[in-house]
Amino acid sequence: MACYLHRVCSPKFSPLPGWHVVGRPVFQRRNFNRFVVRKRSFRQAFWLLQFIGWMLISHPAFAQLSKLFAATPLGSLIIVGGGDTPIKVQERFVALAGGAGKAKIAVFPMASLRSDEEASEIVDDFQKLGADAQVVSLTRSEANSDSTVEDLEQFSGYWFSGGDQSRLAGLLLGSKALERIERRYLAGAAIGGTSAGASVMTSLMLTGKTQKPRNAGEEELLNIARGMQELAKGFGVFKGAIVDQHFMHRPRYNRLISAVLDHPQLVGVGIDEETALLVRPDGLWEVLGNNYVKIFDARKARIIDDAGPMAKAGDIRMHILPAGSTFDTKKKKVSFEED
Amino acid sequence: MACYLHRVCSPKFSPLPGWHVVGRPVFQRRNFNRFVVRKRSFRQAFWLLQFIGWMLISHPAFAQLSKLFAATPLGSLIIVGGGDTPIKVQERFVALAGGAGKAKIAVFPMASLRSDEEASEIVDDFQKLGADAQVVSLTRSEANSDSTVEDLEQFSGYWFSGGDQSRLAGLLLGSKALERIERRYLAGAAIGGTSAGASVMTSLMLTGKTQKPRNAGEEELLNIARGMQELAKGFGVFKGAIVDQHFMHRPRYNRLISAVLDHPQLVGVGIDEETALLVRPDGLWEVLGNNYVKIFDARKARIIDDAGPMAKAGDIRMHILPAGSTFDTKKKKVSFEED
Repeated sequence: MACYLHRVCSPKFSPLPGWHVVGRPVFQRRNFNRFVVRKRSFRQAFWLLQFIGWMLISHPAFAQLSKLFAATPLGSLIIVGGGDTPIKVQERFVALAGGAGKAKIAVFPMASLRSDEEASEIVDDFQKLGADAQVVSLTRSEANSDSTVEDLEQFSGYWFSGGDQSRLAGLLLGSKALERIERRYLAGAAIGGTSAGASVMTSLMLTGKTQKPRNAGEEELLNIARGMQELAKGFGVFKGAIVDQHFMHRPRYNRLISAVLDHPQLVGVGIDEETALLVRPDGLWEVLGNNYVKIFDARKARIIDDAGPMAKAGDIRMHILPAGSTFDTKKKKVSFEED
Repeated sequence: MACYLHRVCSPKFSPLPGWHVVGRPVFQRRNFNRFVVRKRSFRQAFWLLQFIGWMLISHPAFAQLSKLFAATPLGSLIIVGGGDTPIKVQERFVALAGGAGKAKIAVFPMASLRSDEEASEIVDDFQKLGADAQVVSLTRSEANSDSTVEDLEQFSGYWFSGGDQSRLAGLLLGSKALERIERRYLAGAAIGGTSAGASVMTSLMLTGKTQKPRNAGEEELLNIARGMQELAKGFGVFKGAIVDQHFMHRPRYNRLISAVLDHPQLVGVGIDEETALLVRPDGLWEVLGNNYVKIFDARKARIIDDAGPMAKAGDIRMHILPAGSTFDTKKKKVSFEED
């Protein structure tokens, strides 16, 4: 009996020629020797179909198609660390928005209560470079009106000037206007921003506030700590990262590193003044401008998650990138102009 | 002829049985066919001797012996980042200097022109912990007198208080006193220091000056740059590292990272206030105190060495280490209390 059972359980056993046992025998009291059997050809057809499916999926055309479904943006982001935006960075933005004579740029001044003058200057700068630019100041209700959304459709570039990122997020998050700007970005438009307009680009943004408030002077110098940096929801167009700006003149290593250790799946991007990160549609991050972008990548770091307030982390990767450098965030690989 | 030459040049050719051609034939006009020949057994003996030599070198006893010759220190270093030295760090120093009732500690106040009061306080602290401590203030000529050197022999711990590291180096570098302190450290004594007394421990130390002087306010905030940080010769007891202190309250990331990228063979060690790095005789670096030691290891980093002033660096390893963590600088490996 043991021998017989051994034979029927073996995958080589076949009760009839051309038929094949699928699965283990079903042991039941009344019907001890009932087997689930199917014709071998069904199984072969199943494997053949699966093979054809894989061939289709791996075809380049399918990759293009899936990109559309996965909403990989065809547009670019230019994220400036504050200070004077270098003319080369502005030129690049105009080029990405369609180039001189074609680019049509909306400049949003709402991050600051009194940045209309700054916005006008930016409009002038873009116009000198051959773009059609205008200030577009929206209230919360305007940001949700259909006519505004229709108006926004005409632009090929959207620029957010500096101020308070929380104000900007409060006005636009969840609005029809922001939804339209994101759709335009997916379709190929450029989005740019400086200072607060840079921080707001990510899904989680540093508000600059800490969970245990101290006076402003100390805030800048606070040490690395766990769960201390307040993070709020941002626009979410710059995926997989968290941005800090004014990284040269305001020493913000500790606050960015704290945020990165709290959220190690996000790459920390510290952008100096007069410096920009260009997020290209091919997924590469390229540095433009006069100073550095400093990258803090803790995705492969060793981080101890205990109950204490002190961070414990090993093997955070840091990259010091001047203009011309790129970072491949998927491959975690840096390239320089010399490469 | 060509064929004959081919044969004699071939390593398989042997003019006499038992003899072997060593080296290529010496082509000379007068003596075309002279060869440098030696008996094969000489060569075999040479290889045998070499093999025995390697066996000896790889023996554990030889490793012990070579350690003595290579002057691996039997003593410990305690390097404090400034601020109040926590009592636990002082206790550890007393223990490393022989323990309560045995430790005899010299406190050197010379880094500062007016730190005698601070030095007296440190002496009091050590005495409360059961050590025999005293202020030892040396001039340059005293540091070179034989009687001073004899006096220094009695101590089991040497502590350098804060001030200006260049002043300390100027007084003691190359002196008989420092030579004796180093010998005592190799033999098992402890050396400690805070602030300037911490920076001076390495072979190359940050002076705090930059090659292109700017005003003091800007100095703290200077960005990363190549060849900008002035480095001077330090005591050289802490090998393979470069130290910066007051790393929490004075944002010194940029200046330490600059120095590390100029000298990537040295590990950057940023020590916060009220925090210490203990360099143990087993080679491990252990963190003590209230805040962090931040390690910047560019030994495996990718650094572009071009003519420009901008740094270009990828894959610098950063470690954020609170008390209880250790860093194995040879294996480049971090361990936490949890391990």
